[in-house]
Amino acid sequence: MYLEQINESADVKKLNVEQLNELAAEMRKALLQKLSKNGGHFGPNLGMVEATIALHYVFNSPTDKIVFDISHQSYSHKMLTGRKEAFLEEAHYRDVSGFTDPKESPHDFFTVGHTSTSVSLACGLAKARDVKGDSENIIAVIGDGSLSGGEALEGLDFAPELNSNLIILVNDNDMSIAENHGGLYQNLKLLRDTKGAAECNLFKAMGLDYLFVEDGHDIEQLINALTQVKDSKKPVVVHICTQKGKGYDFAEKNKEPWHYCGPFDLETGTAAVTMTEEDYSDITVAYLLKKMKEDRTVVGITSGTPAVMGFTEEKRKEAGSQFVDVGIAEEHAVAFASGIAANGGKPVYGVYSSFLQRTYDQLSQDLCIDSNPATIIVYTASVYGMNDVTHLGIFDIPMISNIPSLVYLAPTTKEEYLAMLEWSISQKDHPVAIRVPGGRVVSNGKAVTTDYSEINRYQVTKKGSKVAIIALGTFYELGSRVAEEIAKKTGSEPTLINPVYITGTDDKLLEELKANHDVVVTLEDGILNGGFGEKIARFYGDSEMKVLNYGLKKEFLDRYDVEKLLQENRLTVGQIVEDVMKIQ
Amino acid sequence: MYLEQINESADVKKLNVEQLNELAAEMRKALLQKLSKNGGHFGPNLGMVEATIALHYVFNSPTDKIVFDISHQSYSHKMLTGRKEAFLEEAHYRDVSGFTDPKESPHDFFTVGHTSTSVSLACGLAKARDVKGDSENIIAVIGDGSLSGGEALEGLDFAPELNSNLIILVNDNDMSIAENHGGLYQNLKLLRDTKGAAECNLFKAMGLDYLFVEDGHDIEQLINALTQVKDSKKPVVVHICTQKGKGYDFAEKNKEPWHYCGPFDLETGTAAVTMTEEDYSDITVAYLLKKMKEDRTVVGITSGTPAVMGFTEEKRKEAGSQFVDVGIAEEHAVAFASGIAANGGKPVYGVYSSFLQRTYDQLSQDLCIDSNPATIIVYTASVYGMNDVTHLGIFDIPMISNIPSLVYLAPTTKEEYLAMLEWSISQKDHPVAIRVPGGRVVSNGKAVTTDYSEINRYQVTKKGSKVAIIALGTFYELGSRVAEEIAKKTGSEPTLINPVYITGTDDKLLEELKANHDVVVTLEDGILNGGFGEKIARFYGDSEMKVLNYGLKKEFLDRYDVEKLLQENRLTVGQIVEDVMKIQ
Repeated sequence: MYLEQINESADVKKLNVEQLNELAAEMRKALLQKLSKNGGHFGPNLGMVEATIALHYVFNSPTDKIVFDISHQSYSHKMLTGRKEAFLEEAHYRDVSGFTDPKESPHDFFTVGHTSTSVSLACGLAKARDVKGDSENIIAVIGDGSLSGGEALEGLDFAPELNSNLIILVNDNDMSIAENHGGLYQNLKLLRDTKGAAECNLFKAMGLDYLFVEDGHDIEQLINALTQVKDSKKPVVVHICTQKGKGYDFAEKNKEPWHYCGPFDLETGTAAVTMTEEDYSDITVAYLLKKMKEDRTVVGITSGTPAVMGFTEEKRKEAGSQFVDVGIAEEHAVAFASGIAANGGKPVYGVYSSFLQRTYDQLSQDLCIDSNPATIIVYTASVYGMNDVTHLGIFDIPMISNIPSLVYLAPTTKEEYLAMLEWSISQKDHPVAIRVPGGRVVSNGKAVTTDYSEINRYQVTKKGSKVAIIALGTFYELGSRVAEEIAKKTGSEPTLINPVYITGTDDKLLEELKANHDVVVTLEDGILNGGFGEKIARFYGDSEMKVLNYGLKKEFLDRYDVEKLLQENRLTVGQIVEDVMKIQ
Repeated sequence: MYLEQINESADVKKLNVEQLNELAAEMRKALLQKLSKNGGHFGPNLGMVEATIALHYVFNSPTDKIVFDISHQSYSHKMLTGRKEAFLEEAHYRDVSGFTDPKESPHDFFTVGHTSTSVSLACGLAKARDVKGDSENIIAVIGDGSLSGGEALEGLDFAPELNSNLIILVNDNDMSIAENHGGLYQNLKLLRDTKGAAECNLFKAMGLDYLFVEDGHDIEQLINALTQVKDSKKPVVVHICTQKGKGYDFAEKNKEPWHYCGPFDLETGTAAVTMTEEDYSDITVAYLLKKMKEDRTVVGITSGTPAVMGFTEEKRKEAGSQFVDVGIAEEHAVAFASGIAANGGKPVYGVYSSFLQRTYDQLSQDLCIDSNPATIIVYTASVYGMNDVTHLGIFDIPMISNIPSLVYLAPTTKEEYLAMLEWSISQKDHPVAIRVPGGRVVSNGKAVTTDYSEINRYQVTKKGSKVAIIALGTFYELGSRVAEEIAKKTGSEPTLINPVYITGTDDKLLEELKANHDVVVTLEDGILNGGFGEKIARFYGDSEMKVLNYGLKKEFLDRYDVEKLLQENRLTVGQIVEDVMKIQ
């Protein structure tokens, strides 16, 4: 086995082309094995085996520095840089993350999980090299799907200003997670169709040199091209054509669902676990499709991740022109939504909490200053969301809830979520974001008909005394259990409150609580700093009321265990009750 | 006077070309008059007179909808849409803002002040039109300088997906605020040089139709071109060439300082008021130039606004390759800085608080996850900063201070600022942002040599009892005056604290204060929500300590009066002392 002999770039260089092809076969086999047992980014990794081999054959990592965009295609790179055991031995599968990580290896330069960053980061590495007087090669790898992101386009535009070595490997598999959207993809097609010869060339129009490689799975072609640009004194794009999911028939034929996979049966391609429980994607798409039929001005928007809203290929067809995938372009998505709202349409943009981070300025400037009535659905904004350090959903409350005009709602059940969507789409006064609850869907079957127009009106769901528990969104259930436990222990029923609104305080209610309460507990599913509970603490700052805020510590967590994390943050019923009893 | 007869597009259409040229002369004269007395965006407005006339001649505003990028070139548009008095009569000069504003006129669709948003916003207007079944023209105006911004590039890429009417007027004056930076400007030059005939065309590569207008001050040429694209069924770019500051000799010859002007003498071009006092731009550039000479790995970075860091054309030359203008590309700037730091360089990125909003995700993902030691200088982050609603500097504390790993420092004097810069550039462990104080530079001439490595260590500057005042950054002086006043009134000296660190609490000190204090006052120069003071309130939530948080209400302010605003937010010495006495 060649793979067993490889620990760094130097070892790759010892092999001839035939042996490199053998190596590719071994690597693809290992990838398939691991992915079938462990899940992960399937399509992107299967497509980058040969290109990664060629990169390490031509360049000398880590002196030469390779930066992977999103880095969800870096498994092959990990295999070739001292981490092969994590792909060959099941006991070591979880030794490595699914992304590049400088803590894991000196061959990784950044912890990356968001799209469209590699060119800019690589420009920085190159600039530092130049001011230091060094001369290594800097390589940015970027997929075609990521090219539509503003940061990538800014990076491509800036790169020529360096006027020194930078190699941008554009891995064009003619797919984003779903199909690509954006005018530039017509140009990529033109370049593929003309084998790179077309005069009209996005990269050249950005001031970059350009080289085309027809078969991005042909190691010899790749080596020739990369050798040609090695030590280039100018930024140059190497445009390679690859196939997503290469080497696995099911994935080659059905690319979108095979972008990322859970464990599956290698023979049949069938998922090992089938999700049968309804989730918020199903709930959203069912609601929106119905709404779109009733009202042609309702427009669903995704920025390259339609599945999180439940919009599979089939559902997208059903929605027709009322569903818009803007491609990976979160900034545009928010401004676009604002424009739709400003002209009387009803935009609904669904986005992961972590990717919403791209839109702070658009939320503030393009949407909220004019209070345009767009609806934003924020997914996986929870400790129960994604747990890679690059995909955390625990920062959105401090990020967006302090933007004026925005109404950020925290539903606690399916029915509340639907009522909030209904209200948000129908009203004309506020930009509204809705924080989809984390964990299992809580549903009691009772339709909610609340009119949410009375902004910042909290709901007292159980009237009690002494202790008031304000339990936000996902953590409402936790609050409810804490209330029960306190009642049991003290014989006195606490007040339980569903605050509904993340973006403001119900000053009248908070004031009233002073009459017969002496402790207020806040619970929120996110970091405490800059969040919801601190506003309650500020409100009571000059009073006798004691306030206990519960939520997460401000930190970058990585692949955490939820229960352990909750324990560490004193977020269990027992711990909270213990704290309350201490000051009661 | 033709201008006096014009209240809307329909009135412009009544004039013939000769009369339109007369109108342009009248408008330019009015602009010069007003700008010389009032100041404002000079270059951009002088350059857009003829194009704006042509737009209103060909299209029918507000049915046809024109969206201006940044909208700092919309003065002519205002003149032609019922707001001419604000340009003709000195008493009415301040009736209108310097930007488009839907509250001001139905001809304005968005309140805009940040760059690169017009195409995306216009795409939204167009999409709403299409789903409603309407058929008006939608026009996005965008300057060449704004094209390098990620949001603009995302919008250009998305536009062809609309597959319906959208007219993108690219106003190419071959300048940003300073000179343009980025590879795409080579392509604009090529297009200018070939009169639009070059095959390699950025806009076509993005999938857009394209039309070139050689003289963007020739109303007839403009009308012909716009008539040609009117009612186009596909998105199309009309690329017009104009001159920044057109019609005023001093501005034509010296474009950068004439981008924005204060009041000046029309005859001589001399500013009415000369700033002689040292400001933080001067302090920064002097420090950085010295530092760059000592250490070739120090790299200054701006995203199109070099002047705020003090880097005039002359100073940029002095810095050479150690100063990089990335163009309007804030996202790229942060990722680029992170890359430089990751490869051993010492990046220093200077940016306005308001424009830093573009970089939330880059700060979090590209910089802070890996704790790369970049320095970010945050300017006009103060109630004393810019006061247009689109340029406020009062939101950065909640925005960035809740991002893990970031160390956000609040200097109170020039000397502290310099010490923090020195420390930040020399250390290797933290991404650091420094919040430049607002208002007049406070300097006591005593060099500060603090080592800021002990993160979150507050400084007790006056030891007292009963009341502790934690006064952040710009508001340290206010805190100092409050302390004096309380001492005078009660005979008891309060404790005065310079917290230095915005991003954390000094738990040890806060704990110690409990021993002989019963009130803690926090003061911060920004909104309270999600800010600094709330963290102190949370800390003391379960204790007997009373906490009073002072700062601004969460709201979008517009052209406010500082003193009045401070009064409204109980931010005067008298009000604060009154509140403290009440609970003491």
